Amino acid sequence: MKQPLTFDSLLHQTGEWLRSTGPHHTIVLSSRIRLARNLNGQPFPHWASSAQRTKIVRKVVAAVGKSSFLKGSLILPMKKLSALDKQFLVERHLISRDFAQPPDEKAVVISDREIVSIMINEEDHLRLQVMQSGLRLDEAWAILQRIDQELEKQLDYAFRDDWGYLTACPTNVGTGMRASCMLHLPCLVMTRQMERVLNAISKLGMTARGFYGEGTEASGNFYQLSNQVTLGISETDTINQLDRIIQKVVEQEEAARKVLLKNHREILEDKIWRAYGTLRSAAQISSGEAVKLLSLVRLGTDIGRIPVKDPALMNRLFVQIQPAYLQKLEGKILSPDERDKRRAQLLREAF
Amino acid sequence: MKQPLTFDSLLHQTGEWLRSTGPHHTIVLSSRIRLARNLNGQPFPHWASSAQRTKIVRKVVAAVGKSSFLKGSLILPMKKLSALDKQFLVERHLISRDFAQPPDEKAVVISDREIVSIMINEEDHLRLQVMQSGLRLDEAWAILQRIDQELEKQLDYAFRDDWGYLTACPTNVGTGMRASCMLHLPCLVMTRQMERVLNAISKLGMTARGFYGEGTEASGNFYQLSNQVTLGISETDTINQLDRIIQKVVEQEEAARKVLLKNHREILEDKIWRAYGTLRSAAQISSGEAVKLLSLVRLGTDIGRIPVKDPALMNRLFVQIQPAYLQKLEGKILSPDERDKRRAQLLREAF
Repeated sequence: MKQPLTFDSLLHQTGEWLRSTGPHHTIVLSSRIRLARNLNGQPFPHWASSAQRTKIVRKVVAAVGKSSFLKGSLILPMKKLSALDKQFLVERHLISRDFAQPPDEKAVVISDREIVSIMINEEDHLRLQVMQSGLRLDEAWAILQRIDQELEKQLDYAFRDDWGYLTACPTNVGTGMRASCMLHLPCLVMTRQMERVLNAISKLGMTARGFYGEGTEASGNFYQLSNQVTLGISETDTINQLDRIIQKVVEQEEAARKVLLKNHREILEDKIWRAYGTLRSAAQISSGEAVKLLSLVRLGTDIGRIPVKDPALMNRLFVQIQPAYLQKLEGKILSPDERDKRRAQLLREAF
Repeated sequence: MKQPLTFDSLLHQTGEWLRSTGPHHTIVLSSRIRLARNLNGQPFPHWASSAQRTKIVRKVVAAVGKSSFLKGSLILPMKKLSALDKQFLVERHLISRDFAQPPDEKAVVISDREIVSIMINEEDHLRLQVMQSGLRLDEAWAILQRIDQELEKQLDYAFRDDWGYLTACPTNVGTGMRASCMLHLPCLVMTRQMERVLNAISKLGMTARGFYGEGTEASGNFYQLSNQVTLGISETDTINQLDRIIQKVVEQEEAARKVLLKNHREILEDKIWRAYGTLRSAAQISSGEAVKLLSLVRLGTDIGRIPVKDPALMNRLFVQIQPAYLQKLEGKILSPDERDKRRAQLLREAF
């Protein structure tokens, strides 16, 4: 029988989306789909009173309790979490940065292996999210549909036949869906092709963000590509379109890797090995530098230059070097200097 | 019975001066004394004819053959050496860069463990050199005196009672002696005290040069400190004066190390470990970068942070990463790119 998930167990497990499995997993770190849903007749969270928000949390939690898929999930009221705990969940992509802000009448539901997370009272009453490793938007969508249907049996969703699902922000009205993939594109960056790629993506109605979503930089050569449009297009059409575009970008990154390995193999390998050497040796390191170096080493493992026993390690480390993870691991608040040292220690132990 | 020295055996042996022994050997890499001597009635090498130079080589070689100390020494006519071989001897501090240039009626005598080298027909007819590890000017002088006396029995030195030994360049007239120590002063450099130290040294009649002598830069934080004056002061007074100054500089470097370890330990250790990581990992590396990183790692071993089994390794590597050594090791001419790779390989294997 499965042990029920606890907050502390998150610290020592690898989220499903980081497992380095699934199609194109060397370039496509993960696939993610989220749905925005709201309850009929209730004000959106930002306009609701504290009592109304509390009531919504109670309703959704009750519905979650009846979902067979979500059985054994962790249900965390945000009230009970410290600022550090919240930051830890942001780093694991289980909640958004906005969700970590007050007010506190919010809860997050986290399923086994962190495949599903449900934010209650983010911008919408519900934000359902499914994450998978590799290019697996279809699988993510299948799981998400199942949960959405289970919850819809319990909850009265705000829905209009002409518009679709109603959402707090008009850009989500319709399907309420955002599908995205996290891509690692070091060689498109090195060969200075990213601007061209991003322009093309934008023309196709898709958008690109950094490792931590909207408003974050593309650190470590990670780009999160997602659909923009939620109105007038079906969920499956959106997913298929994004899937095709991602495959195209994957092909271009693969081509860039081949070109670099053919024409600049030695310089590339030297960069990779030096990054590896620094990660194995540094006594202190900022997260910015660590992400940059890890990106090179991840490329090194992908192209078979640097051997790692556990391929998921190279994904996990991007999350584990983040400030809150390090502090949870250490069991106490650390100053930035102390974090730089703890981060370096973690990296030395990893390699 | 000792095997006679061969040119190829030099490649695989550690010169006495690199052995990391003797007083203050962590800061004072080596001590060196050389004497300029000329034969009476013979024109100085630069003014001599080819036949005269050949005759001088023959005379000196014959005298060397009768020295008991120099028994079994390698005698290398420069004519027989390739440009690469000559460069190799320059890198080992056995001949000067000028000596490697034409004309070729020259020879070098190299004793067991490379303690003694005698250049015949450099600027002067004889340049006798003794090298020792650590601060051991007295020992070097004792050996050099013995050889000088042995040779003087066979050769008629140009000497005047009022001036002393006559030399091609007036700056050497008198004792014809230059004593020097090679110092590793990374912490005086880091704490920006070198300018002050060099000014003080200069006022005391001493001079500072780089790792490869006159006109070379102080790469790797190595400074070769030596006497300037050869006239009106005895050899022992010169040596004692230099010895006292070196001890003073050693104290200052030690103080700078203490201050850095006290106030900036973590930054310093991080620098050292990163240098170590890069040397262990790089796929290609220039000699300039390698020297810079080796200097940090040498400091790291000196202050007990980086463990090395063989303390002489950290001295040897400064010579082994040089272009000619790498090419002799590989047994062929290498392009600069190939050398950068061979150098990186040698360093990876060393650490």
